[in-house]
Amino acid sequence: MSKINVAVVGATGAVGREMIKTLEQRKFPVKNLRLLASSRSKGLTIQAFGKDVEVEELNKDSFNKKDIRIALFSPGSKVSKIFAPLAAENGVLVIDNTSAFRMMEEVPLVVPEVNPEDAKKHKGIIANPNCSTIQMVVALKPLYDHSRIRRIVVTTFQSVSGAGLKAMNELRSQTENYLKNEKIKAEKFPYQIAFNCLPHIGDFLENGYTQEEEKMIKETHKIMHDSEIKITATTVRVPVFIGHAESVNIETQEKIPVNKAIQLLKKGKGLKVIDNPEKSEYPLQIDCEGKDEVFVGRLREDTSSEKGLNMWVVSDNLRKGAALNAVQIAELFL
Amino acid sequence: MSKINVAVVGATGAVGREMIKTLEQRKFPVKNLRLLASSRSKGLTIQAFGKDVEVEELNKDSFNKKDIRIALFSPGSKVSKIFAPLAAENGVLVIDNTSAFRMMEEVPLVVPEVNPEDAKKHKGIIANPNCSTIQMVVALKPLYDHSRIRRIVVTTFQSVSGAGLKAMNELRSQTENYLKNEKIKAEKFPYQIAFNCLPHIGDFLENGYTQEEEKMIKETHKIMHDSEIKITATTVRVPVFIGHAESVNIETQEKIPVNKAIQLLKKGKGLKVIDNPEKSEYPLQIDCEGKDEVFVGRLREDTSSEKGLNMWVVSDNLRKGAALNAVQIAELFL
Repeated sequence: MSKINVAVVGATGAVGREMIKTLEQRKFPVKNLRLLASSRSKGLTIQAFGKDVEVEELNKDSFNKKDIRIALFSPGSKVSKIFAPLAAENGVLVIDNTSAFRMMEEVPLVVPEVNPEDAKKHKGIIANPNCSTIQMVVALKPLYDHSRIRRIVVTTFQSVSGAGLKAMNELRSQTENYLKNEKIKAEKFPYQIAFNCLPHIGDFLENGYTQEEEKMIKETHKIMHDSEIKITATTVRVPVFIGHAESVNIETQEKIPVNKAIQLLKKGKGLKVIDNPEKSEYPLQIDCEGKDEVFVGRLREDTSSEKGLNMWVVSDNLRKGAALNAVQIAELFL
Repeated sequence: MSKINVAVVGATGAVGREMIKTLEQRKFPVKNLRLLASSRSKGLTIQAFGKDVEVEELNKDSFNKKDIRIALFSPGSKVSKIFAPLAAENGVLVIDNTSAFRMMEEVPLVVPEVNPEDAKKHKGIIANPNCSTIQMVVALKPLYDHSRIRRIVVTTFQSVSGAGLKAMNELRSQTENYLKNEKIKAEKFPYQIAFNCLPHIGDFLENGYTQEEEKMIKETHKIMHDSEIKITATTVRVPVFIGHAESVNIETQEKIPVNKAIQLLKKGKGLKVIDNPEKSEYPLQIDCEGKDEVFVGRLREDTSSEKGLNMWVVSDNLRKGAALNAVQIAELFL
């Protein structure tokens, strides 16, 4: 396989660092790796592919040399809005992890296990979906292919790493302060996250939903190519460092018995079923860290609906929820 | 008001201690307070009503003197099964916080804001419902009275105090060990609870549900006197010390617009609405500690159903979820 030049933009963030790690672990054929970030991180070095790579400042000329084939972007939505189009104009295929382009009609929103064919329609930018959406659609895809999903009621348990490295540090320092009976400062989160759950991710919209909840609804429609799926979501930040969990309730067009659902999920792409209640085995956030799969368990018939199922879906939000999914999209073009 | 003799059985546990505190705070007319517990706690003293009260060992003769009018029980289900009937035979009105009697037809299961009239039908024992059930039915009652509730899909975020004092200590010690990079031991919980969520409360049943999930379904039917409400539940333990939160999705017979629902909830008994998304105001577990109310917020139209609503329900599981509800039942008999 011929090697190509790759850039990671937002290389020093939680997702950026995971992107570098994932490129290495998957032996992505990188010729030259360029790491770009804001001026604050300029001059830092990060170990990648056995070398110390210096972080460069992202600026308008970063892509002028037209030497980069693929750039994985995760610098925050505002920065992506400016620099992803600049990169694309210079012939770079941008895979952007922010929310900047996800809902634009001309930008494919891709989960390789679900809609890889959409990637080919790109015009320079491909969007990586929101972390909580990715793991849900990976889990739902094999069921949907068996019987259309009519309705989804989802409640999430999202780790702080979804809000970045500073948020992880805030959970740690708040927890230390709590245990020492010291004052707790909330900066990244609106309130204390240590030993507390916050039903508030992203800004609030007029209809009372948060941006995160809206993303789960709209992105699922776009990825699944089915805007008739009725979806409601409640997204909650929990005091967990890495890994999102989701309590997913679905109703399907035809009844899918639990045993059949487990069979379908076991054959599903990117999925691992952990479902042995008699041995107290089910997916856990602490177990998913650093793993590639979306884990599904606690499969049960919905006692409130004839064609309903409940399940518990867990994945590493920095990997499948972000970095891994982006790298998998890049791999579609090798 | 004439004073009466009261006993607290299981007085040294997390709920027992809260029962004593609640009796004091509500100025319950206690003449003599007897504190009973297992032999391990015999001889301990607990401050109550300005005195040091010695803890007595619970045994078969504890109620022989027929001097106790009301006993609040929270010693664990197995102990209640033996001693609550003995107490009742000796003329004591037992208000039992365990699951031992809840589903027995002749035992009323009472939430004073919802079905106070059931209390009068007791034959010596009244059961206090499960914590996660109590706060949900308090929140649903005013809506139900306006339009019957057809379906409930609930996912809980339950604090460790619901599993007792040892569980609270386990969260603390696991958290300390985690932060020091030391080995983590799980004893009260099947896995690490520090920085992790466990979708497992109570034992697993054959249908894949846990006992806790089954309680939410069956107890709600009994308290609401409506077994036609279709209910499914996913109950999850989260690393929070005190306070349960619930993501509740309901469908009603007639549509209840959000504004109307908020109006109804504001007039509801034992409820407080905190719902100002524009100011980032919603109920939080850390804020409910020590408070009596059930807090409701994040009221939204369900985007997946024409007659659906989402809400976020939070309460102190040791108070309204246990001790306070028991004392309120006792107050019905003053």
